[in-house]
Amino acid sequence: MIYLDNSATTKVFPEALESFTAVATNYFGNPSSLHELGMQAERLLIQAREQIARLLHVKATEIIFTSGGTESNNMAIKGIAWQHRHRGRHIITTSIEHPSVAEACKQLEQLGFEVTYLPVDERGIVSVEDVEKAIREDTILVSIMHVNNEIGSIQPIEQIGATLKKYPKIFFHVDHVQGVTKVPLDFKKANIDLCTMSAHKFHGLKGAGILYVREGVKLSPLLAGGAQEMQLRSGTENVAGIVAMAKALRLAFEKYEKARQELNEMKRLLIAELSKIEGIQVNTPVDHSAPHIVNFSINGLKSEVFVHELEKQQIYVSTTSACSSRKKAPSKTLLAMGADQKRAESSIRISLSYENHRGQLSLIIEAIKHALKKLQEVAREM
Amino acid sequence: MIYLDNSATTKVFPEALESFTAVATNYFGNPSSLHELGMQAERLLIQAREQIARLLHVKATEIIFTSGGTESNNMAIKGIAWQHRHRGRHIITTSIEHPSVAEACKQLEQLGFEVTYLPVDERGIVSVEDVEKAIREDTILVSIMHVNNEIGSIQPIEQIGATLKKYPKIFFHVDHVQGVTKVPLDFKKANIDLCTMSAHKFHGLKGAGILYVREGVKLSPLLAGGAQEMQLRSGTENVAGIVAMAKALRLAFEKYEKARQELNEMKRLLIAELSKIEGIQVNTPVDHSAPHIVNFSINGLKSEVFVHELEKQQIYVSTTSACSSRKKAPSKTLLAMGADQKRAESSIRISLSYENHRGQLSLIIEAIKHALKKLQEVAREM
Repeated sequence: MIYLDNSATTKVFPEALESFTAVATNYFGNPSSLHELGMQAERLLIQAREQIARLLHVKATEIIFTSGGTESNNMAIKGIAWQHRHRGRHIITTSIEHPSVAEACKQLEQLGFEVTYLPVDERGIVSVEDVEKAIREDTILVSIMHVNNEIGSIQPIEQIGATLKKYPKIFFHVDHVQGVTKVPLDFKKANIDLCTMSAHKFHGLKGAGILYVREGVKLSPLLAGGAQEMQLRSGTENVAGIVAMAKALRLAFEKYEKARQELNEMKRLLIAELSKIEGIQVNTPVDHSAPHIVNFSINGLKSEVFVHELEKQQIYVSTTSACSSRKKAPSKTLLAMGADQKRAESSIRISLSYENHRGQLSLIIEAIKHALKKLQEVAREM
Repeated sequence: MIYLDNSATTKVFPEALESFTAVATNYFGNPSSLHELGMQAERLLIQAREQIARLLHVKATEIIFTSGGTESNNMAIKGIAWQHRHRGRHIITTSIEHPSVAEACKQLEQLGFEVTYLPVDERGIVSVEDVEKAIREDTILVSIMHVNNEIGSIQPIEQIGATLKKYPKIFFHVDHVQGVTKVPLDFKKANIDLCTMSAHKFHGLKGAGILYVREGVKLSPLLAGGAQEMQLRSGTENVAGIVAMAKALRLAFEKYEKARQELNEMKRLLIAELSKIEGIQVNTPVDHSAPHIVNFSINGLKSEVFVHELEKQQIYVSTTSACSSRKKAPSKTLLAMGADQKRAESSIRISLSYENHRGQLSLIIEAIKHALKKLQEVAREM
């Protein structure tokens, strides 16, 4: 089996799962409880928070634990919107965001907010100038992803952050779900106020995520209640999942640090080889893209059938983002890049992990050629 | 060790943890992915949903998976409020709800909604008549807990549901976190539209919960995005946690069904024995209360110190709800019941599980007497 759908979800590190099991068995107390069983759980939580903060070069008090990327994105966007609604009701984002950003924005539009969706160029990259031009008197939030989840294009987060320094009242949120451990990002240097991460995208477990909230940033809680997590996110903490996430983040940083060059080489070779195949159009730009995502279109053929053909050869890829794959809608990112309907509807995403290497390349390319040939034959017969 | 803080959190069933580990290891696919690894995960999700629906006697499509009780409560209340805001902006709840209901209501008040907080009697029970009297033209939601988390009083959910049948446009939400598996509740008979449950309160894992949403009930998603969970709750599903929750729910129903009589007897004996001790006032009513919660006050002594004294004897209890225990505020429920400040500030909660039995009674009572004596001595010396 060659698993190439790591942007949908990753295989958990065995060490992280072991941590989970050990914590869930031996430290089951509620971290809010006053007795020793509660304190033990709380200490684990404090350790995990400090460990994650060190890895991200931020303060422990700036790390908020959530249930995942979708919650972190909703919490950041709605939290800022409701908290700062009296100052303004305008939000700037892009047309290629993950649904958990795009849909949160749509909900706010129905509740009286205004949202500017910036275009991207043919490489899937937003322009820093466009961001600045969109700023208004009543802008309270700019939300832009780091690495696009469909094609892997890297947005100029540092430059946007530098621009936003001139507008200190505007908050800057970055969806870093696909980027963290794969594409370095210095939160402080990029002037980021809020940053979203999800454990199961870096070999942690599903059900745990992070929202970095810069010291001093106020937001209205999405989950109100018992005032856990610096009073920003209530609910009994998933201690075992959080401890496992801290371990996974450390291991992922180590492993992707080592694997980065190999993955970058592999991406370049994949793009080069795919470009040679007739009927394939590569969508991922060679430069300004993450080392682990390669997206291509199969010229109007049915991408879902293609996924199943590759699966017969034990190779697992996806049509688009996992969330959107069941809807069979054209790729939003590709449409925003100016691709025609046919190209946007027939996209395939390969997403690598640190376990992949160039030795698998010929097998993958051969399997793709084989699957393509079969689909072309079927198309001709119809 | 005698663990008596099961309303804060429970020890996970080993069988549930085994399910978690097996799923996280062998079925790590994203249930939204099109390939077989995704389908396997999706099948597990479908099975868990059907199993839970059967246990609760509802439809599988009415079961929404969340990250826990706090999310379910916030989702129900804010979801109904935003979805139906054009019809009305009035909500009815009680003065003894869990913070995740009370704080969600407070947030909505700041955003233009009106909330009526109903009183309770000296037993901690709301009156059905009061609910009906509070109904207005613009009421859209009634949110009332089943079993109070601090003192264990049972609210007349079925009667309130019967009353609300006359007002078909008002939604009825029940926080069933402390009740499920301990106090039977027929969702259909009680005319419930939305019902909250949390896995770690019935020996499942932290990080998983349920919101029952009756067929046809529309609500604005708290977590918008990839449209998972009947489009009501986006985010990659915590498949392993959900499968473990389904197993835990089944086992908990079995074990508490068997243990109910024993726990009820134990509660009665605890209340009887505690009532005899000078300096103790029992707060839990003998009747109309859950079998697993006994709350008492220690006459103005420091409840936190009392918890630590009991801990020295390896007995674990809590001062109030876990969420509120760090704040050292007086018990909201006791104040609402008419208790004075001293009594409300010195409350202790014992919460049992199916593992407790009458054989432990004398040990518990002796330990309480011992701890009380020590505290009284300290108080006299001061």
